Amino acid sequence: MTKIAILGGSGYTAAELIKILLRHPHAEIVAVTSTKEGTPAVADLHPSLLGRLSLRCEPFDADRLVARGVTVAFGCLPHGVSMATLPALLHRGVRVIDLSADYRLRDPNTYAQWYGESHEDLAYLAQAVYGLPEVYGDEIATAQLVANPGCYPQTAILGLAPLVAGRHIEPTGIIVDSKSGVSGAGRTPKLTYHFPECNESVAAYAVGVHRHTPEIEQVLGDVAGGPVEVIFTPHLIPMDRGIFTTIYAVPRRPVTADGLLELYREYYAGKPFVRVRESLPATKDTAHTNYLDLTVRLVRGRVVVLACEDNLVRGASGVAVQNFNRMMGYDERTGLV
Amino acid sequence: MTKIAILGGSGYTAAELIKILLRHPHAEIVAVTSTKEGTPAVADLHPSLLGRLSLRCEPFDADRLVARGVTVAFGCLPHGVSMATLPALLHRGVRVIDLSADYRLRDPNTYAQWYGESHEDLAYLAQAVYGLPEVYGDEIATAQLVANPGCYPQTAILGLAPLVAGRHIEPTGIIVDSKSGVSGAGRTPKLTYHFPECNESVAAYAVGVHRHTPEIEQVLGDVAGGPVEVIFTPHLIPMDRGIFTTIYAVPRRPVTADGLLELYREYYAGKPFVRVRESLPATKDTAHTNYLDLTVRLVRGRVVVLACEDNLVRGASGVAVQNFNRMMGYDERTGLV
Amino acid sequence: MTKIAILGGSGYTAAELIKILLRHPHAEIVAVTSTKEGTPAVADLHPSLLGRLSLRCEPFDADRLVARGVTVAFGCLPHGVSMATLPALLHRGVRVIDLSADYRLRDPNTYAQWYGESHEDLAYLAQAVYGLPEVYGDEIATAQLVANPGCYPQTAILGLAPLVAGRHIEPTGIIVDSKSGVSGAGRTPKLTYHFPECNESVAAYAVGVHRHTPEIEQVLGDVAGGPVEVIFTPHLIPMDRGIFTTIYAVPRRPVTADGLLELYREYYAGKPFVRVRESLPATKDTAHTNYLDLTVRLVRGRVVVLACEDNLVRGASGVAVQNFNRMMGYDERTGLV
Amino acid sequence: MTKIAILGGSGYTAAELIKILLRHPHAEIVAVTSTKEGTPAVADLHPSLLGRLSLRCEPFDADRLVARGVTVAFGCLPHGVSMATLPALLHRGVRVIDLSADYRLRDPNTYAQWYGESHEDLAYLAQAVYGLPEVYGDEIATAQLVANPGCYPQTAILGLAPLVAGRHIEPTGIIVDSKSGVSGAGRTPKLTYHFPECNESVAAYAVGVHRHTPEIEQVLGDVAGGPVEVIFTPHLIPMDRGIFTTIYAVPRRPVTADGLLELYREYYAGKPFVRVRESLPATKDTAHTNYLDLTVRLVRGRVVVLACEDNLVRGASGVAVQNFNRMMGYDERTGLV
Repeated sequence: MTKIAILGGSGYTAAELIKILLRHPHAEIVAVTSTKEGTPAVADLHPSLLGRLSLRCEPFDADRLVARGVTVAFGCLPHGVSMATLPALLHRGVRVIDLSADYRLRDPNTYAQWYGESHEDLAYLAQAVYGLPEVYGDEIATAQLVANPGCYPQTAILGLAPLVAGRHIEPTGIIVDSKSGVSGAGRTPKLTYHFPECNESVAAYAVGVHRHTPEIEQVLGDVAGGPVEVIFTPHLIPMDRGIFTTIYAVPRRPVTADGLLELYREYYAGKPFVRVRESLPATKDTAHTNYLDLTVRLVRGRVVVLACEDNLVRGASGVAVQNFNRMMGYDERTGLV
Repeated sequence: MTKIAILGGSGYTAAELIKILLRHPHAEIVAVTSTKEGTPAVADLHPSLLGRLSLRCEPFDADRLVARGVTVAFGCLPHGVSMATLPALLHRGVRVIDLSADYRLRDPNTYAQWYGESHEDLAYLAQAVYGLPEVYGDEIATAQLVANPGCYPQTAILGLAPLVAGRHIEPTGIIVDSKSGVSGAGRTPKLTYHFPECNESVAAYAVGVHRHTPEIEQVLGDVAGGPVEVIFTPHLIPMDRGIFTTIYAVPRRPVTADGLLELYREYYAGKPFVRVRESLPATKDTAHTNYLDLTVRLVRGRVVVLACEDNLVRGASGVAVQNFNRMMGYDERTGLV
Repeated sequence: MTKIAILGGSGYTAAELIKILLRHPHAEIVAVTSTKEGTPAVADLHPSLLGRLSLRCEPFDADRLVARGVTVAFGCLPHGVSMATLPALLHRGVRVIDLSADYRLRDPNTYAQWYGESHEDLAYLAQAVYGLPEVYGDEIATAQLVANPGCYPQTAILGLAPLVAGRHIEPTGIIVDSKSGVSGAGRTPKLTYHFPECNESVAAYAVGVHRHTPEIEQVLGDVAGGPVEVIFTPHLIPMDRGIFTTIYAVPRRPVTADGLLELYREYYAGKPFVRVRESLPATKDTAHTNYLDLTVRLVRGRVVVLACEDNLVRGASGVAVQNFNRMMGYDERTGLV
Repeated sequence: MTKIAILGGSGYTAAELIKILLRHPHAEIVAVTSTKEGTPAVADLHPSLLGRLSLRCEPFDADRLVARGVTVAFGCLPHGVSMATLPALLHRGVRVIDLSADYRLRDPNTYAQWYGESHEDLAYLAQAVYGLPEVYGDEIATAQLVANPGCYPQTAILGLAPLVAGRHIEPTGIIVDSKSGVSGAGRTPKLTYHFPECNESVAAYAVGVHRHTPEIEQVLGDVAGGPVEVIFTPHLIPMDRGIFTTIYAVPRRPVTADGLLELYREYYAGKPFVRVRESLPATKDTAHTNYLDLTVRLVRGRVVVLACEDNLVRGASGVAVQNFNRMMGYDERTGLV
């Protein structure tokens, strides 16, 4: 049994992570930290966990966690807080899967530019591995610090990887039009996410300035072996969970619909959590699973990729457990069926 | 043209009221007050109003409103604030329709008991008329101050009025089980109304302690000519608007299904906004209208009444305009078709 | 490994059942039957199962199922079809958990009265055990045929069992007001369940005539040791899954709020899937789980019980697996965490 | 008073049209036709109309309609049926606003190609005016037959018109990514629109083959004075009404964000139902109105237009009344405030 701590237990990704780990045969959650006053029971923060997890929240204390045998921690902290907290555990040899954005962007200047504050942990940033198993699977296996990927980026990156890997498309002007359920915005109430405001409505937000843009480009740049530029537009959809991403790209050489589908099938052969479909995918078919579903079409000479996932599972806590499995040498699918 | 001020312009009832009044041939909105800093345009608070109302919000100033010719004000203020604000207008002869709860409960002790603070305007409280046109239509016509009714109470009162008026049912132990859309909770973000919390969920709240209980009982007491007691349970439903109320009562003498329906039809003859249906009603058929739909059934010797409305229109701003029409001598339906 | 057949694979309960059984360490699905033409892949009927279950649908053939080692079958067939199909398996010694209504009502006359057709399998009807583990746990363990309970009845029965077991309430005039998500209506498209009709709406249906009424009364009669009569009103709520049931009963002797809560806690001690809460429950906290959450309050001398569940899991496929576990001697929670 | 007939009264656009016309001071609905058996009351087909419209449905009979003084008809018939029905009225001098697709595409070959059947009324097709008031306002005023525009096309056309009119963008490779509520699919139940299937889900459909594609290109071709080609992808969103369209285009010469906004403001000056916003629009702010809201941004050298509307009002019945107003010489906004 691997003893696990969850850091920052009050949000949606923490709750989802706990539910997945409760099914995992080799994981034991021994601590959940939170800055909530009064060390409430985790099941008071998340009533769905009543009778399933009897832990109380506790303040973060690296020594105490190590003393209790924690060898792996999942960080569910806000960005900024994450890089101020995790080094204490990393110094003590704990392996960490960080669900915040703090260790995703290799270049601290890019971080400063998009997140508005300078990076404060350049040492561990240099060691962090981006936790997308389908791209960096081997590095993840041996990493001490895995930067779990963002929800939107996974749909964009896995939707485009077969195309950019083979340089099948123009690397600039790629359109990434994403539609997300509201849980992606987190658990802090704001007018934008007040039910009567966002229910029965669709709207774009953060047009041209969303922080997932450089993350998408960094990883696609790795896959392509050269710069890739996307125009990324997220939209808020009145549903709990799910991201649907529609991608438009210009092929660099003649392609066929069948050829594209075959390209995707080959690229994702042996990747159990990417399902290449013939029919059009729907977010609901991925809900509460770690699957990322996609297909590819050719429309008037443009490549159109349609990819979707559950933003809380595949987009956050599920892929975190997939990374955990790789790091520990378990079957990648353990706890995720 | 009647010149109108709307007090407290930032919430849902104010927005709904403005939309209704923009269609009203005899009403002109000349002022919208708000405590928001910077006197924003009303269309900045409610983007749906862009191009429809060009007023900016202004601080409340009774003299200024009167100077601009305001003769009727609609109060969309929170309870407590309402009774601290309206007297200044009432003293100056302005007629007021108050959408808060401040002037609904005749007995200030009942107010103190359920709202947790003492009533501070006993003088106008004594003059206020409860604004349910189907029950107090004549008094409304001549009132200076109308206490616009609560959303839940209208479904309960109009659902039960024909039964208690004729003393057809036991006056105690009446079950009122209500289901409401989320807009009834107002526009202030809270975790309970955060989309991913309340979407795809049903829950009861304020069981046994909801403030609309004494309001229902006061008016039914008037209709019955004696005390009436209800057990009222509200539930939160994942939809924007609509209240559905299911009522269970014990008949005091033998009744038939047909007889009950006939009783309702007679009671509501000539009331244009109460639709007695043979088939079961649905909130959607009343959405964005001032209609209250209901039917009555007999199940194993119990009378079951099913009543519904749009909580923002019939439950608040629509009935406010219906009251306005009665006060001004206009056809009751003006602006409400 | 227990080899399992699922009969009638095209609906929601079958899909949910497959997902649960895929996680069950002692169950292997070896056949899924359907009358769909062309023996489609199960994953074509349920795209969410792509890559998770590779079986194709097959016509029902009892001999063939037995030849392939099937020892337990789950019936997800429509009522009527179920009693015409299951005897062939039962004769061959297969144990069956039937999710239809066909074997729930002990008295064939009651069946005929509420379902509009005569019962055609009196022999197995006499042997069937009603599959509510918290009430008939021992009989289930040894049963060959388990009649899996209805979704609404579980909330009503488990909500009332502690009260009627101790004769704490009047056994007639009990109000059961239920609110259900739309998946409870099945997967066949009808205007009532067409998205733009039922979304953003609440309505009651089948008032006084819903078929779950006699089922509730039969089981509560067993628990009470005498007749129990309920007034049951189901409502359709715009959400996928979840049932919330609000129950109103008249106590026969003085009770206190604390005493009621204690009564429930004692009654459900050792029942892992009934969670007695102090706070008000919400369907969302039970979604995708086999938990039934409830609490009890005292309002103006009436007992008010609030109970909820996921209608597809606890209300159908989850409790079916709970029954399966009891029949096979597995831990009751296996596959259901 | 203009006497009006509504042809095909059972769907959503007919219901919406009736509600708008009931508020119109110069329109009187004198007939609603339907092929429903038994000539049901219109309020039986649409329970929301109880007490608001007392007409019964009647079979279509051109002579009878003319005899009753009908001078304008709104066609809410399915495509194919429309062109088989309307000529009888047109021959008799009735002016018609056709909400079907039958008279939208100027070239009958294009119709045959996208709708799969040959056009059967070339005579009136040649006379029909495409009913987009902001583009063909003068022709609409004098037309006998107006082909009311499709819901998606209006967002695409009005979103792109200022750009293509001034040849500011490349006329090919324009991406039109649309998100629509479910009412756009009509009122006929199908599995795709069954609540538990499409609720809490997003999916693309008809990728590359949606019939609104040639309609968008025809009108934009008129505006541009040359061919325009779009890649159009519609998506289904779990909400009742609303279309949000995100458009990506490549500028042909340097543009600025401010310059683009100014271009749109000038183009739509004096068009009361197009609101050019600075902030990002949301479908909810247009719900139940005839407004089309839009804004324009510059992202990494691409022009991104964001446009939205209510698909049943602006997208169908509202713009139909706007066309009616123009045809009759009424103020364009009559009945639409």
